[in-house]
Amino acid sequence: MKAIVTVMLKDGVLDPQGKAIGHALNNLGFPQVGEVRAGKVIELDLAESDPKAARAAAEAMAEKLLANTVIESFKIEIS
Amino acid sequence: MKAIVTVMLKDGVLDPQGKAIGHALNNLGFPQVGEVRAGKVIELDLAESDPKAARAAAEAMAEKLLANTVIESFKIEIS
Repeated sequence: MKAIVTVMLKDGVLDPQGKAIGHALNNLGFPQVGEVRAGKVIELDLAESDPKAARAAAEAMAEKLLANTVIESFKIEIS
Repeated sequence: MKAIVTVMLKDGVLDPQGKAIGHALNNLGFPQVGEVRAGKVIELDLAESDPKAARAAAEAMAEKLLANTVIESFKIEIS
């Protein structure tokens, strides 16, 4: 199975990378861009064949390594 | 409208960050992890109210700034 883990900074945590992207886009001729948030996405190939087990494993991985849960939240899609 | 741009390295482009994450997960007790690919996700708040216009704008932004289309591919979701 494939697990896609998306890691974003939590609301309220300053996101200087997103801010920089937003300013750059405004300066490049995209005045319609407001707030921008930047995050990471990690695609994992898992040997599990059960979607529930795959989700549980991906959650454990996100908590242990992929996300810093103090300042980041994560979301998991299984396919 | 909100546009979510996901940028991943193209297939065949070496992804050392993904490899490092894969090895770290294997060593942390997740032997079921095979290939790992790492990418970026950028959430944009757009002033557009038409989904088609929002998608076109996000595509232009991805091509101009957010992705390096020589080695990266991108995908856009509008909501």
